[in-house]
Order: sequence, then C-alpha cells, then structure tokens
Amino acid sequence: MNKDVYIAVVGPSAATPSEHNLGEEVGRLIAESGAVLVCGGLGGLMEAAASGCAKAGGRSVGVLPSETRAGGNPYLTTVVATGMGEARNAIVVRTADAVIAVAGEFGTLSEIALALKMGKPVVGLGTWELAKDGEPVEAIVRSDTPADAVSTALRLIELR
Amino acid sequence: MNKDVYIAVVGPSAATPSEHNLGEEVGRLIAESGAVLVCGGLGGLMEAAASGCAKAGGRSVGVLPSETRAGGNPYLTTVVATGMGEARNAIVVRTADAVIAVAGEFGTLSEIALALKMGKPVVGLGTWELAKDGEPVEAIVRSDTPADAVSTALRLIELR
Amino acid sequence: MNKDVYIAVVGPSAATPSEHNLGEEVGRLIAESGAVLVCGGLGGLMEAAASGCAKAGGRSVGVLPSETRAGGNPYLTTVVATGMGEARNAIVVRTADAVIAVAGEFGTLSEIALALKMGKPVVGLGTWELAKDGEPVEAIVRSDTPADAVSTALRLIELR
Amino acid sequence: MNKDVYIAVVGPSAATPSEHNLGEEVGRLIAESGAVLVCGGLGGLMEAAASGCAKAGGRSVGVLPSETRAGGNPYLTTVVATGMGEARNAIVVRTADAVIAVAGEFGTLSEIALALKMGKPVVGLGTWELAKDGEPVEAIVRSDTPADAVSTALRLIELR
Repeated sequence: MNKDVYIAVVGPSAATPSEHNLGEEVGRLIAESGAVLVCGGLGGLMEAAASGCAKAGGRSVGVLPSETRAGGNPYLTTVVATGMGEARNAIVVRTADAVIAVAGEFGTLSEIALALKMGKPVVGLGTWELAKDGEPVEAIVRSDTPADAVSTALRLIELR
Repeated sequence: MNKDVYIAVVGPSAATPSEHNLGEEVGRLIAESGAVLVCGGLGGLMEAAASGCAKAGGRSVGVLPSETRAGGNPYLTTVVATGMGEARNAIVVRTADAVIAVAGEFGTLSEIALALKMGKPVVGLGTWELAKDGEPVEAIVRSDTPADAVSTALRLIELR
Repeated sequence: MNKDVYIAVVGPSAATPSEHNLGEEVGRLIAESGAVLVCGGLGGLMEAAASGCAKAGGRSVGVLPSETRAGGNPYLTTVVATGMGEARNAIVVRTADAVIAVAGEFGTLSEIALALKMGKPVVGLGTWELAKDGEPVEAIVRSDTPADAVSTALRLIELR
Repeated sequence: MNKDVYIAVVGPSAATPSEHNLGEEVGRLIAESGAVLVCGGLGGLMEAAASGCAKAGGRSVGVLPSETRAGGNPYLTTVVATGMGEARNAIVVRTADAVIAVAGEFGTLSEIALALKMGKPVVGLGTWELAKDGEPVEAIVRSDTPADAVSTALRLIELR
C-alpha cells in the first residue's frame, strides 16, 4: 500500500456552486487515477472533492480539526480527528505528495504556504496569487481545468 | 461512512512472537466486525494488527509520528504522516471510539492514559496495571483473548 | 539563556489542599534553584506550582490546551496557547529536562508515560504506580518531600 | 500576568543584514512597550527580533519546531520545544495577539495566513503581497518602519 500516491485538495469551507463543481471534478479525477485524496474533512470544497472521489469509488482521508469524527463530511472513506484546530493543516499537507488548491480563503493559503515550505508541488485552480516587492512569485503551478490540475499534480509527483 | 466504528490498537513497536500473534488476531477480528482499525502506523504490534486486518480485507489507518509516509508498515490501507512525534498518540486515540492495548511500553501507556482522560473505553490484553497509594485503579477493562477484547470494545462503544 | 534548566510539574487540575501545598512548595523550590517551571498552565496542581514559583520570583511557562491564553492561571510568567487539547501534554514534557509528578489523574499519567518514552527523568510525589504482569515497574523515582523531589530532579538532569 | 500583550514576529530563518536590522528594531520596540515577543525561536529574523528584545530587557518566548530546546537562539528568555515541525507555526500565531511579518519566505506566509484565518491583526514590513483573480487582497496592514509596525500592532490589539 505504501506505493499509493496521495493528493491533497485544499479550498474554502464555503464553496460557490462553480467552485463546488471544480472540487467535485478534481476529486473524481484523483479517484480515477488511483490516488488517495487527502483533505481537511469539513464541508464546502473539501466535501465537494470527497463527494467526487466517492462517486468514482475512490479512497479519501479527511483530517479534521475537531476533537471527534462527527464533523467529517459524509463522503470521506477514512476520517481522522486531530483535536488540533488549524494546526491540522500541516498534517493534511505532510500526508500528501502534492497539493491542488481550488479558490480558497486564508486557511487554504496556509496550506499552500506549508506545502511550498515543505517543497511539495502546489497546483492552483483559481487560487491565491503571491508577490513580494511588487514582483509575482510564481511558486504555484497554475491550471485552468480539473483535468489539467490532476494530471499536472501527478506528473510533478513523478518528477520528484 | 460516518457511522463507521473505529478501534485503536496500541502496543509496542517491538513485539514478541506471542504479542505479534495477539495483535494479528485482534486486527483480523476488528476487520471482520466491519470496524476501522487505527494505529500508530509503525512496526511491531502496530504492524501485526494492520497485517491481521489486511488479511481479512479490512480497513486500517496508521497515524505516523514521522514527516513522511515512508515509515508506515506495508499493511495499512491509509497512512497519515503527522510530523509531530509522540504528540500523534493523542490523534490515534482521538480518532478511535475505543482502544485495545496489547502488552506495551511507555508509548502505549501514554495512549492508554490519553484515552482514559478522554473518557474512551480501554480494553487491555496483558498490558499495564495501574495503582495509586497501593490500591489498584481498575480503569482498564481486562481481557484474556483477542476475541473477548474485540467484542468487549464493541460492546462498550455501543453503550456510550 | 540556553543553559537554563527546565522542570515540568504535572498533576491534577483539581488538587486537594494537601496536594496544593505540595505543588506550591515544589514550585517555590524550582524557582529558588534558578530553574524554569513548565506546566500545563491550568488550575489545581498547575496553578499551585506556578503560584509557589511566582512567590519566589521565579520564571514559569504554561503550555495551555486551549485556543487562547485566557485560561492560563494568573501566576504564570509566560503563557503559550496551543489550541491542541491533550496533545499539548507532549509539548510540556518535551520542553522539560525532567518531570515532577504530584498525585495526578489520567492526564498526569499520560505526561509521565510520554516523559519515560522520551527518556526523561520522572520524579513522583504520591503519584501513579506502574506494574506489568503483577510485577512493579519502577520507572518513576519516588520522593517523599518537595525538597527531595526537586533536588532529585536536578541531580538526575545533571547526570544525563 | 494575564494582562500581558503578546506580539509575534515572523520572518525568514536566513535574514539579510537590512532585514536583521528591521527585526532587531521591532524586537527592541516590543520590549520597550512592555509586550512579550513570540517567535519561532530559530535564527535569522527570529534571532534578530529576540536579540533586540533582550537588549531592551524584554521578555520573549521561542516556540521551536524541534524536539529539544537546543536549537533555540541565545536571546530568548523562554524556550518551548514542540517536536511538531511546521505545525508549531499555528502555536506561534495562537499565542500572539497580533503578528508582525518582516520580509519572509513560505513559512512566514503560512504564519500570516494562519493569523488571518484566526482573525488576528497582521502588520507587514516588506512582506508578502496577496491577490486573487488579479485583485489585491489587502488583509495585511502595511507598515514602513519598525516604529510604525509596533505602534500599529498595539493599536489594533487595543481595538479588538
């Protein structure tokens, strides 16, 4: 089982309908690739991704901030309760070989930053843009479609 | 999926052959009950339990102390890398509805103690005995066989 | 500052008057030795120890389980909010060179166990007694008075 | 002691000389305000800030990623060893009432993001710029000098 590939999908806990569709499609494609989906386990984008994964018969693990498994969305195949609040973002990222960020609020930004700090590939679908001193920092690999995002993530994992 | 029952199996990372057999049997019986096995993900008793679970076609999640998934034993169906060292013991226990402790060293004792602190049932198979002021503290439910340990854990979960 | 010695005092969050006196005396003696007191930051024994430390003009750090510093007892000179619940017990122990356990409930037992797992000296004042297979496991160094507990902890730290 | 104000200073573990000067000045001014400095405890900007704080006789706490206190910079007045790697960034931010970000790499970005997620004021001195969909997201309060950064942080804390 240790040859499994794990891809984290990170995004907002309140997703718009179009973000939801992106998340669901990303989850489906991860499942179809045979990879394991990792996420923060809650609603919104996390639930969309887990739902897409479940519909394609894939495996997912939700790493919850809460003290019990109760708040996990119903599509996860495995739920881990950390009781560690936002510190669990580091576990979501550590567990993954690459991260796909869809849209996203500040929690998502923290996961992007932690992944980059750990040297893991980050693929972005309409997510944060970073700059310093007025110059863009192109650390996130931009993607326009779920299909491209998942295939890019898989390719970057293989190159590591 | 949120109706799943999760049972943690905790024990030494270096198990004797007889402890290994106990762990494997506990893992098998958890799988056969349909519950998800949670463990610390490493070798010894954790590997024995995951191995028994895998042979019965069950699901297991290993919550590793390390920064990568690489050290997870090969029988786990899901691996989470926390990068948090011994602090991950709290996650193993939080994720579970009950804990079965087989033999065990000090790490196991910390997991027993955390589970009792969190009010979760702990079933012991030849594990630590606790006392204060010379009086036994019977907080661990003693069991003599893997079959009894697993059925006791399931019954105590149902009673909660 | 890196030559400072740190001693953790662990014990119940609801202490009896006599436990309170023991904790306060341990805290005072740690302060007088020039060491830094580490504790879980809450009430009961933790507050007693921090209070004794403060009265002797010593330094203390409380590592709280909560998301804010607000629940820290008023005697701490430094407060750290982890937001990690019981997982913060591992941080209390990691930060210390030795642990003094006074009385104690299951949380205290988890801190004793984590310290032993990490190979740190644990001195006990009326705390848990451990056994396996009916045989005592004498991993905790027993002490009868706060003065003996603190001097034993300091001596064991020096021997490491 | 619970009325103390805590300000986190976050920045790169390898600081340029001019970043070092900024960090030291920020640390000095925090100390002079009577607030406690929180940081990640390592070198670079963290050390610069702790050094400035120490020279002004202030108090600082370094929350280390490592398993021992040994890697803490020599200027910290209190050192906490978490053994949790990058997950300790969440603790640095949780412990603080506001965050001042000086320059910074990806670890710093994760601390900025976690602070914003937690609703804490973030003041930036030449640090990351954020945007979504080509539009700047002005969540970081920009400052041009250490004096303005510290007084802005203190004012924002008072307003909360």
